[in-house]
Amino acid sequence: MTAGLLPRPAIELLCAGSELLKGQLNTHVPRISLLLAGRGLALSREATLPDDRAGLAREIRSALDRSDALIVSGGLGPTFDDVTREAAADALGLGLRFRPAILGRIKARFKRLGLRMPAENRRQAFVLSGAEVLVNKGGTAPGQLLTLPPGNGSGSRRIRTLVLLPGPFRELAPILEAQVLPRLKKRYAPRSVTERLSLHLAGIPESAADEKLSNLVATAGPGLSFTILSYPGQVDFHAYAIAKTSRQARAVLGRVRRKALAAVGRHVLWEGEAPLEAEVGRALTARRLTLAAAESCTGGMLASRLTDIPGASAFFLGGVTTYADALKKDLLRVRPKTLRRHGAVSRECCREMAEGIRRRTGCSLGLSVTGIAGPAGGTRSKPVGLVYIGVAGPGSKTTVHELRLSGDRGFIRTRATTRALQLLLESAARRPR
Amino acid sequence: MTAGLLPRPAIELLCAGSELLKGQLNTHVPRISLLLAGRGLALSREATLPDDRAGLAREIRSALDRSDALIVSGGLGPTFDDVTREAAADALGLGLRFRPAILGRIKARFKRLGLRMPAENRRQAFVLSGAEVLVNKGGTAPGQLLTLPPGNGSGSRRIRTLVLLPGPFRELAPILEAQVLPRLKKRYAPRSVTERLSLHLAGIPESAADEKLSNLVATAGPGLSFTILSYPGQVDFHAYAIAKTSRQARAVLGRVRRKALAAVGRHVLWEGEAPLEAEVGRALTARRLTLAAAESCTGGMLASRLTDIPGASAFFLGGVTTYADALKKDLLRVRPKTLRRHGAVSRECCREMAEGIRRRTGCSLGLSVTGIAGPAGGTRSKPVGLVYIGVAGPGSKTTVHELRLSGDRGFIRTRATTRALQLLLESAARRPR
Repeated sequence: MTAGLLPRPAIELLCAGSELLKGQLNTHVPRISLLLAGRGLALSREATLPDDRAGLAREIRSALDRSDALIVSGGLGPTFDDVTREAAADALGLGLRFRPAILGRIKARFKRLGLRMPAENRRQAFVLSGAEVLVNKGGTAPGQLLTLPPGNGSGSRRIRTLVLLPGPFRELAPILEAQVLPRLKKRYAPRSVTERLSLHLAGIPESAADEKLSNLVATAGPGLSFTILSYPGQVDFHAYAIAKTSRQARAVLGRVRRKALAAVGRHVLWEGEAPLEAEVGRALTARRLTLAAAESCTGGMLASRLTDIPGASAFFLGGVTTYADALKKDLLRVRPKTLRRHGAVSRECCREMAEGIRRRTGCSLGLSVTGIAGPAGGTRSKPVGLVYIGVAGPGSKTTVHELRLSGDRGFIRTRATTRALQLLLESAARRPR
Repeated sequence: MTAGLLPRPAIELLCAGSELLKGQLNTHVPRISLLLAGRGLALSREATLPDDRAGLAREIRSALDRSDALIVSGGLGPTFDDVTREAAADALGLGLRFRPAILGRIKARFKRLGLRMPAENRRQAFVLSGAEVLVNKGGTAPGQLLTLPPGNGSGSRRIRTLVLLPGPFRELAPILEAQVLPRLKKRYAPRSVTERLSLHLAGIPESAADEKLSNLVATAGPGLSFTILSYPGQVDFHAYAIAKTSRQARAVLGRVRRKALAAVGRHVLWEGEAPLEAEVGRALTARRLTLAAAESCTGGMLASRLTDIPGASAFFLGGVTTYADALKKDLLRVRPKTLRRHGAVSRECCREMAEGIRRRTGCSLGLSVTGIAGPAGGTRSKPVGLVYIGVAGPGSKTTVHELRLSGDRGFIRTRATTRALQLLLESAARRPR
């Protein structure tokens, strides 16, 4: 849930691409949101439309009637169904101008790759009449930025901005960062600064966090907004303050922080912008702790999330995924008797896995996960969703935690991995060497 | 790129939730697309709006003017910013009716969990006048389905359907599957069947696939549409045929398949709906091959993707992530001399890792990945993006492949993992035992 003002200026995102409505995941929205947030701006709306010229033209027209700026991504390629340029021209009653310099750059690009430019790419050298060309260093399609004065055929009394960007994020992001956002910031929010406070909570359901923070959230208003986001096993509380100076915004957030800690402080696992994996890395590196992991049901997901962070090799020595019991014995020295008596999904096996990987690698911390992710393999006494997490060290202590999760295989694996990372963070924080 | 008709019937999705515009990833669109595709239906458009009553009401109104059906997700919760019910009532000039039976179910749900129902939840018992209640077994907010006859205050001459669903996908999906999609299918596409053909290509850039398939794609028209989707290291070609019977649709796709194989056949790695991981699992299981993996730069991602599939234990025995060189020596018996002379990122080390994990586990196939994912760690002779993939077995042969990738850490890791899975599939297909 979210409280506060609607975003001002209103900046909309329009994603063009039939494939985005046929099963392809669109990660543009969160990634562009975060780039905007970095400048104190926010998205007011997003829409995804098929590659259909008339439909796109209607949407561009109405978005520019509603909002200050519209960012369109995709549909600038060379093929017949890339129609964003034409749709924008239709929407605004403008022509498209051929720019020989762009064609020269596209041809040169192909030449560098040892290829001849196909005839279709000529289309990419057409630009909306009056638009600025945004250089694309990563691909053939340049971006375009068009400034619309107040009025201009619409009822709007504001200066409006239309931005066309290529679809691939690796081409879009650098253009947006370097050539678009500074202009939007200067044009629409020249004198404001946004600061953000982030608290990450574990061990509390979203509705309970919501209730405990409701008095605080009720103070939302101009200049202060809140978001509570829940993920499997985690609730994130974000506060955004807009002010004339960074100092003023931080002072507001300081008061918010004190009230939030009074309400939910004992559930706060960490503060700041770092994701859980990076926070774990920071905590372990700061305390010069090293880690190795032994995974069964999470099957490498824990190691993969830890090594997503650059610099993971500073604390993470490695891990094993022991799906087969033979590997649990061979690589981790889990005792055959333990497997026979208690099975691979047991408190006892989990303890031996954590201690085994720690001893084998000489790390300060050994982490283990064993459980039943499903859909098959559950029994009455050991149902799908039963997971054990073991932490061996620092020092001589080993603790084993039992989880009883529900959901599908992917959810159980993700939830178990998140909980293991949280327990690691708690261990590192609780017992510095 | 995509060719074919715009979706008919037109079914739109509206996601309500300010958090979706502040950095939270929305996975509803692809997942709902696939559920619709299973019934021969498709999304014609998607929009994400903040939790703002007036904005949502305007969007609901215009969506129902444009389309046959509108599915709204989110904003049915109990808190003050859940305003979808009110927005829909505003949009259509309808009242909200209190339904005591719903309140009874909500209270009973809380009671089962040993809790008292907070007063706020009473709001969830209000339903649009004339709407049917869609029972939600997974949460407190019921869904709603409203049928709008032709006209009804708009210029539309069709029967239109408004569906309100709770935001969490685990609540939304069962309601959509069991209570909504059969109705939409019956109402808007009662006599049509959709069949799908999927070819998965590797070793060919999207633009080249596009060019080779352009003659075929030009045959798109009523009843036949195409999509070419590219992922890091993979291009997927999908054809959808709509006909009166499944047999007719399959006959059309049979002709499409022959032409597609003539154009790009040598790049086709597999056919069908299974994702790469599942296809690898199928191929290995069918040939009774077993597998273990030794990972360095992919850090567990390969094992994690393989164990995402239910039943992975039938062929995957386990793996090791050897970030530290000491573990490469200890767990994989990589020779100290190899590491000294050639380094951990080398053809030689990769070979020893693949053979080491195979020998250690007794698997028929040993797979290894070592490389430099960046951002740090690159040198002139071994730049960021240099990756080796080794496949040991079946039989006595070991092959090592060199990749030179560009992009950020996440992209390089993902691309290397995908390529490793593809090489595994080729090995399994090429040399059955």
